[in-house]
Amino acid sequence: MSVNVLFAALPERWETYKIPLKTAFSEQGVDANLSMDLPADQVDYIIYAPNSELQDFTPFSRARAVLNLWAGVEDVVGNDTLRIPLARMVDDGLTQGMVEWVTGHALRHHLGMDRHILGQDGVWRKVIPPLASDRPVTLLGLGELGQACALALAGLDFPVTGWSRTTKSVEGITCLSGDEGLRKALSSAEILILLLPLTGETENIINAETLALMPPGAMIINPGRGPLIDDHALLAALETGQIGHATLDVFRQEPLPPEHPFWAHEKVTVTPHIASETRPITSARVIAENVRRGEAGEPFLYLVDRNLGY
Amino acid sequence: MSVNVLFAALPERWETYKIPLKTAFSEQGVDANLSMDLPADQVDYIIYAPNSELQDFTPFSRARAVLNLWAGVEDVVGNDTLRIPLARMVDDGLTQGMVEWVTGHALRHHLGMDRHILGQDGVWRKVIPPLASDRPVTLLGLGELGQACALALAGLDFPVTGWSRTTKSVEGITCLSGDEGLRKALSSAEILILLLPLTGETENIINAETLALMPPGAMIINPGRGPLIDDHALLAALETGQIGHATLDVFRQEPLPPEHPFWAHEKVTVTPHIASETRPITSARVIAENVRRGEAGEPFLYLVDRNLGY
Repeated sequence: MSVNVLFAALPERWETYKIPLKTAFSEQGVDANLSMDLPADQVDYIIYAPNSELQDFTPFSRARAVLNLWAGVEDVVGNDTLRIPLARMVDDGLTQGMVEWVTGHALRHHLGMDRHILGQDGVWRKVIPPLASDRPVTLLGLGELGQACALALAGLDFPVTGWSRTTKSVEGITCLSGDEGLRKALSSAEILILLLPLTGETENIINAETLALMPPGAMIINPGRGPLIDDHALLAALETGQIGHATLDVFRQEPLPPEHPFWAHEKVTVTPHIASETRPITSARVIAENVRRGEAGEPFLYLVDRNLGY
Repeated sequence: MSVNVLFAALPERWETYKIPLKTAFSEQGVDANLSMDLPADQVDYIIYAPNSELQDFTPFSRARAVLNLWAGVEDVVGNDTLRIPLARMVDDGLTQGMVEWVTGHALRHHLGMDRHILGQDGVWRKVIPPLASDRPVTLLGLGELGQACALALAGLDFPVTGWSRTTKSVEGITCLSGDEGLRKALSSAEILILLLPLTGETENIINAETLALMPPGAMIINPGRGPLIDDHALLAALETGQIGHATLDVFRQEPLPPEHPFWAHEKVTVTPHIASETRPITSARVIAENVRRGEAGEPFLYLVDRNLGY
């Protein structure tokens, strides 16, 4: 018997995902009737992008789960019409892409690459950076993405500290939690990487007070969520030199408006939300696997805890 | 009984190495009389930088070995007055520094970072790179440095091919050798990293003919030796787009003269021979260990084969 799967995302996504999804359902042995247009009361599963037109889940009377296309769920988790299980995307391709972006920009700041990329003027600027083993890096957030990045950086010999709300244990990583743990994690962070989910507790976690705890000249890399940072506090800390540079991939408003001071700031690098992108082939497999599980009565993978918000 | 160790390098090196060397000799239990100024016929070991004033080894009648401060020996290996063993430097710090620089620049090119570092103009340039697993990287040279870099890149999921003169075997790396192997190694090299020693056989190994074997738009990273590349052939290949970008850390003449076309070329990044620097603390330990071995009648570490040239 076939299951009806609604693809509720922007039309351009459909073009990208249609074939990978059909292939993945077939691999999982799921006979899926996949469409962008199905009567609400006949839909079994909803593949969902929070920026789609679908915001009222009430008419989907028999739907068994909402399967998010992305890792971030902050724009759907508070939707009161959503009463069925919500699964985050945990995509190997997305995780691997994030590891590459984070490792690349951590090494860029560690090595001082911009001095040369921006300084091709005939001046031989011979500055030898310390070894990674003498460059402490801190990650805020030790979820799927944070742990993968922490391990990659530790593999390059950076001493890595990770902080999370609840206490975690990751081999080779100094794991901290709680308020006192946050202060300690920031105090050694020559490079700080933000990979926290966005919740009421994490919004503006990087503010004037926490920025002041970091080593002078520290560098910030934010591939997580824009509102984790108080923008004005960051601009002030860049002004005094307390923060040496910020590389930001996510913003309160995207695309970041051309007039935003981050663009022209010589100590800020703006990247256009590219640190991690769901990859159609690998993420289609995760969605098909979850539909198969739902049909077989097995627990869904990557369920969101609606109270925690992630 | 104390051994007389001559430090034959530029005076500014002495300031950097004096204390690390004394500490390292003491750790090895070697009573060393270490100086920049000793009568030639009383010298037991020579710590040597090929750019020092010492070019005639004839007066050092009782010296037992020349211990090179650097990895590269091409400026001393052909010295006819040198009749005693010559050891290369194999420094953990140097290897680690090279791994960081090579990994960082490979990720920079892979991710297309320059688009953003140089493009902070308010334009949201959203281009998602492929995953590292879809970006073949080739290293020419599988010595200490080449193998360490190959393993680090493979650890980030890049498919890595390594080529060397003699056949090697490194787990997880496609190892090739010989002329046919070189053609094959270059044919898949979206990113090419040069870590060969400089010999008669490797000079200009990157020339018009070999550049034409690479995939169109390939990127070249040279932290090895400047003369591995035929500069004119590289400039011509950048002009046609056959090579997309070159990041060069070593040159036939250093510092690279300000008027050299590499500086102003938009597809070339010049870095000032910083990819790998001998680190005083770790390299002092290698030198002290070799002196201890010499005194104990044990074989020296990292001896150079004068016929092969490395």
